[in-house]
Amino acid sequence: MIKKIKVGIVGGSGWTGAELLRLLLTHSSVEITAITSRGLVGQPVSSLFPSLVGQTNLCFSLPEVDNLSNCELVFFATPHGVAMNTAPKLLAKGIKVVDLGADFRLQDIAVWQKFYGLTHTQTDWVKQAVYGLPEMNREAIKTARLVANPGCYPTAVSLGLKPLLVGGYIQTNRIIADCKSGVSGAGRGVNSATSLCEASETFKAYGVSGHRHLPEISQTLTQISSTSNTDTKIGLTFIPHLVPMIRGMLATIYVDLVEPMTQDEVQVLFENHYQNEAFVQVLPSGVLPETRFVTSSNLCQIGVTVLNNTQVVIISTVDNLLKGASGQAVQNMNIMFGLPETTGLPSIGIMP
Amino acid sequence: MIKKIKVGIVGGSGWTGAELLRLLLTHSSVEITAITSRGLVGQPVSSLFPSLVGQTNLCFSLPEVDNLSNCELVFFATPHGVAMNTAPKLLAKGIKVVDLGADFRLQDIAVWQKFYGLTHTQTDWVKQAVYGLPEMNREAIKTARLVANPGCYPTAVSLGLKPLLVGGYIQTNRIIADCKSGVSGAGRGVNSATSLCEASETFKAYGVSGHRHLPEISQTLTQISSTSNTDTKIGLTFIPHLVPMIRGMLATIYVDLVEPMTQDEVQVLFENHYQNEAFVQVLPSGVLPETRFVTSSNLCQIGVTVLNNTQVVIISTVDNLLKGASGQAVQNMNIMFGLPETTGLPSIGIMP
Amino acid sequence: MIKKIKVGIVGGSGWTGAELLRLLLTHSSVEITAITSRGLVGQPVSSLFPSLVGQTNLCFSLPEVDNLSNCELVFFATPHGVAMNTAPKLLAKGIKVVDLGADFRLQDIAVWQKFYGLTHTQTDWVKQAVYGLPEMNREAIKTARLVANPGCYPTAVSLGLKPLLVGGYIQTNRIIADCKSGVSGAGRGVNSATSLCEASETFKAYGVSGHRHLPEISQTLTQISSTSNTDTKIGLTFIPHLVPMIRGMLATIYVDLVEPMTQDEVQVLFENHYQNEAFVQVLPSGVLPETRFVTSSNLCQIGVTVLNNTQVVIISTVDNLLKGASGQAVQNMNIMFGLPETTGLPSIGIMP
Amino acid sequence: MIKKIKVGIVGGSGWTGAELLRLLLTHSSVEITAITSRGLVGQPVSSLFPSLVGQTNLCFSLPEVDNLSNCELVFFATPHGVAMNTAPKLLAKGIKVVDLGADFRLQDIAVWQKFYGLTHTQTDWVKQAVYGLPEMNREAIKTARLVANPGCYPTAVSLGLKPLLVGGYIQTNRIIADCKSGVSGAGRGVNSATSLCEASETFKAYGVSGHRHLPEISQTLTQISSTSNTDTKIGLTFIPHLVPMIRGMLATIYVDLVEPMTQDEVQVLFENHYQNEAFVQVLPSGVLPETRFVTSSNLCQIGVTVLNNTQVVIISTVDNLLKGASGQAVQNMNIMFGLPETTGLPSIGIMP
Repeated sequence: MIKKIKVGIVGGSGWTGAELLRLLLTHSSVEITAITSRGLVGQPVSSLFPSLVGQTNLCFSLPEVDNLSNCELVFFATPHGVAMNTAPKLLAKGIKVVDLGADFRLQDIAVWQKFYGLTHTQTDWVKQAVYGLPEMNREAIKTARLVANPGCYPTAVSLGLKPLLVGGYIQTNRIIADCKSGVSGAGRGVNSATSLCEASETFKAYGVSGHRHLPEISQTLTQISSTSNTDTKIGLTFIPHLVPMIRGMLATIYVDLVEPMTQDEVQVLFENHYQNEAFVQVLPSGVLPETRFVTSSNLCQIGVTVLNNTQVVIISTVDNLLKGASGQAVQNMNIMFGLPETTGLPSIGIMP
Repeated sequence: MIKKIKVGIVGGSGWTGAELLRLLLTHSSVEITAITSRGLVGQPVSSLFPSLVGQTNLCFSLPEVDNLSNCELVFFATPHGVAMNTAPKLLAKGIKVVDLGADFRLQDIAVWQKFYGLTHTQTDWVKQAVYGLPEMNREAIKTARLVANPGCYPTAVSLGLKPLLVGGYIQTNRIIADCKSGVSGAGRGVNSATSLCEASETFKAYGVSGHRHLPEISQTLTQISSTSNTDTKIGLTFIPHLVPMIRGMLATIYVDLVEPMTQDEVQVLFENHYQNEAFVQVLPSGVLPETRFVTSSNLCQIGVTVLNNTQVVIISTVDNLLKGASGQAVQNMNIMFGLPETTGLPSIGIMP
Repeated sequence: MIKKIKVGIVGGSGWTGAELLRLLLTHSSVEITAITSRGLVGQPVSSLFPSLVGQTNLCFSLPEVDNLSNCELVFFATPHGVAMNTAPKLLAKGIKVVDLGADFRLQDIAVWQKFYGLTHTQTDWVKQAVYGLPEMNREAIKTARLVANPGCYPTAVSLGLKPLLVGGYIQTNRIIADCKSGVSGAGRGVNSATSLCEASETFKAYGVSGHRHLPEISQTLTQISSTSNTDTKIGLTFIPHLVPMIRGMLATIYVDLVEPMTQDEVQVLFENHYQNEAFVQVLPSGVLPETRFVTSSNLCQIGVTVLNNTQVVIISTVDNLLKGASGQAVQNMNIMFGLPETTGLPSIGIMP
Repeated sequence: MIKKIKVGIVGGSGWTGAELLRLLLTHSSVEITAITSRGLVGQPVSSLFPSLVGQTNLCFSLPEVDNLSNCELVFFATPHGVAMNTAPKLLAKGIKVVDLGADFRLQDIAVWQKFYGLTHTQTDWVKQAVYGLPEMNREAIKTARLVANPGCYPTAVSLGLKPLLVGGYIQTNRIIADCKSGVSGAGRGVNSATSLCEASETFKAYGVSGHRHLPEISQTLTQISSTSNTDTKIGLTFIPHLVPMIRGMLATIYVDLVEPMTQDEVQVLFENHYQNEAFVQVLPSGVLPETRFVTSSNLCQIGVTVLNNTQVVIISTVDNLLKGASGQAVQNMNIMFGLPETTGLPSIGIMP
């Protein structure tokens, strides 16, 4: 009999928590031993998510260290500011942590404090945290104690630009990322802006003057670029939009080439770059990504179009709750525990 | 120059208030002199509804009698229990009132108190109130001081059954009304059950054990039936469902005929019954109503199907915010002030 | 190494074909050896369904016996009239068949011909076919050569009524099933009625005068009832509606009890009846099913409400593409080949 | 009694035709005397659009000159290539024409032929046609015999850029317009890509390598710019996307300033520029447009955001069927016949 990894979920009542539950309950090498929600202590998770009736007897508990101390890994699916306070206590006991929130993502503490409006109390742990984008940091994740799981927009944009940045093919000072997300990206908190009456049959931009994912994307693009050029200055305009759908994220990224390249050259560059990645697929030339192709899978699909041999339009899609959040968190767990990276993660999107 | 009716809106921040605003701002015989919202005092209505930028300079005021005393008619677009307290003060000043809420709809105070969980403080006004279904009570509405505007489900179901009930054609003790409403029927209040992530791409029943509109429908059906039979006992099963769309309501009503009738007979009965009504249309035999045919119009469209000459399936549709609420309220106002009944009310649904 | 079952799919370009592909590509005991589509011969399935890029190299072939002759089982995901012609040739070679279409569902050939408008050419095979509702016919399915996979509405309605019919608890002559389906139930064929502009933000009934699933449901209810009463006469009114969503089906069923029963008695009756079924869940009293609880799972969830101890409202939900079609087909295959019944079938709906 | 303008509609069975019908049936100065549809000759328009039952007795006729010869103005709501052949015959009789299609929009015939794949047979009429963007060409429209009604994307993008182009404030060689449209923009033709199952709950780009509206936008931007600079070279990247909603269009436009400007300066520039336009509204600083604010109105709403005093992000919204098509066509008709420009055109979007 296989020994299963004991995991806990802190903040199990939101959408990323729900998706972790769904993935982990069917993961062959995991046993969920605790799930917390301050407001629902004692209630069965199936009372909140009736899709789980008959699938689990788990009940919500308080997010206290004692309830998590027999775990080998704890996922934090909490708003920013929460993991910062509790995770270090678990780390001190040798428990590994994957934080789906933003607390450990930004190395520049001042920037973090400006964008998140809090004082950061765990700057040492920020330095030790590994940014959990496997396609960029796989080796470091293998031995990480604390993984900062990337945001959804940063995942889609970074994977879309990586092949071009690594090779130094583009002008990095005027990147435009026009991004679109389904409503589940806004979380499960009650909010009139995400009600069906206000968010369906409409389309809008938001966060135009500075979304929290802007510095995270800039940091990641800078790190990726530094492999080809130590002086890269990233100039990024990032405008997110809300799409009237539940799941899915699509980034349309506009960049200028340093030297002219053909469609075929860029296509081959991307295909070669990602040929060994299980969860990044470059679509054939002429096939454009649609978010439904990856819905409920852990895939990132990418399509590239070269205009006039001088400009590249990259379209990158993820399911914001899978590769953009909980799926990537499980992928990181698999890496941290030496499991096959694809274990328990769906690779086929649901159509229709 | 035409003198315009001065009207006020109490509770202008919800969906029925927004729809009243839209209708009344383009109504040729109305001037809105006050709109109240306790939480938004002083703010322009266009800051809440940017669709009104450039169309009005109205600002929200407190729902106090002084702010409404120059009105000739006041609409209450408020949760139950509010109009009960303020409307009588306005009525005492000779101001007419149309209450879009439920405070004056039920003649049986005990039933009202049971379903709405409040003590009713204005039972005399309940007796004087006229139930504002024009197709049933047009004459009484003309001289009414206080109109209780019907609920959306009661409007759709009552208009669907009226021709059969008036003539005494059906067994009234086992009527089944399986009803479906868009999400705007739940109001603008913030509620996780109406978030896009929880209410789109899904379908559910609610209020199965006893929705508040049940006694209202029963009362109305009883009154309609009493014209043909003073001893009618209405036996109604009413199950509402939530449809993943913003607007629209469809009632599928199942009744048994007392004597066999053909499709043609029932069709002709309905067509004759409603031939002079501007806002009720009986669709040709074989054409089934769809809610989109009446979206954003004040129409009720009805289709009838006779099965085996013994059972009738009536399908009745309204836009819950127009004929099911604010449109009907304006129709009532038109009647109360001797205007053409259709003034300011759209008769063509928006397709697509 | 486990020997895998070789299966073929005839009609792989529609939604039930797509769902079979998704389920079978990740099924641990199956190898898809052929998939046919007359119009797409030679094309990779991933060109039609880009969600499968990188997951399979299968290409569409012609629906000819030679291309399917090495299969052990063939699924027909074809319009009615197709399986009737090809399946017997496969059966003659000892290949098992699961027909997701309607060709072998109705034992009364005259009724089939009336509702489907074709002459039936394989009446002997109709007699041998087993109706593939495992919760009703599990033993017969184990040894079946030809399984007629049930329609989506018949599955939801029959499972919702079965506990009451088996026990003889209800008046069977006036059953009303008001049913609602997502748009994928209409198939993938191009049709203006299912375009987003005509099918979203609206709700309608259809097939009011006689849907093809009516005789199928009546036949199934009659067979179920015959265990308690050999003379049962089923009187069913069945009205389907189209819901503006992709997946999901909900049946609201109204029946009268023969003798008074309490909520608790009916609740316990249902729970006991289905306690050993992996794919039927009776929700706790007071919890009403929503289609999203079962989306993309093979579950049927049921909630029961007793009104006045005399009437029962049963709400039954399935994902029309899983338990209502392809999932149930795989469940039947598992039974036919002695595999654990749940193999390869998701038991947790996707929320949100 | 007011004499009404007699108008005809060629191609009345699509979405722009339906919207023309809705607007013109309630227009106080118009009488529709003919509506054509080759495939529906003799059928009442209300059989195609049941929202019109009881509102009109019009029937579809053949699109022949005889059926249109008593009109004073004819709208063409037809696919490209149709108006080119029929409109000149009407123009020869002194009948004015507004073409909602693309036949007369592009002055460069070679470009038109390349993008539309047809030989143009009426190049003289192209020269005489006035491009019907009232905010740009109002004077010319007043006396035009033939108006080429703009496309939806060109309307949204051109109005969004006009204040900056007229003043010569931006670098015109790298404009990026990332545009998003509801599905009705694809027309009513039956197409699997616009079915609810394939177009809802998903988001995608299309036409990435060269959409037909690209040269139209470039031509319009060039003409607008020429007022400030005769040598302007427009460099435009235009990527359209499909939004899972019926109506609405939003353009997110990225431009670089020639000289630094503040948010206030750009805001004031836009407000002054459009202060006398009835159908263009500049939202207050900090309020971002959402397509629902203009749904079913003829408005274009615009919001501007200045980043780092060097880059401007303009967000421009229209209802693609109103200001983006049929509403603008009626606006043009009003101008051509000396009516108040706003006659019959809604100025308040429907929310929710």
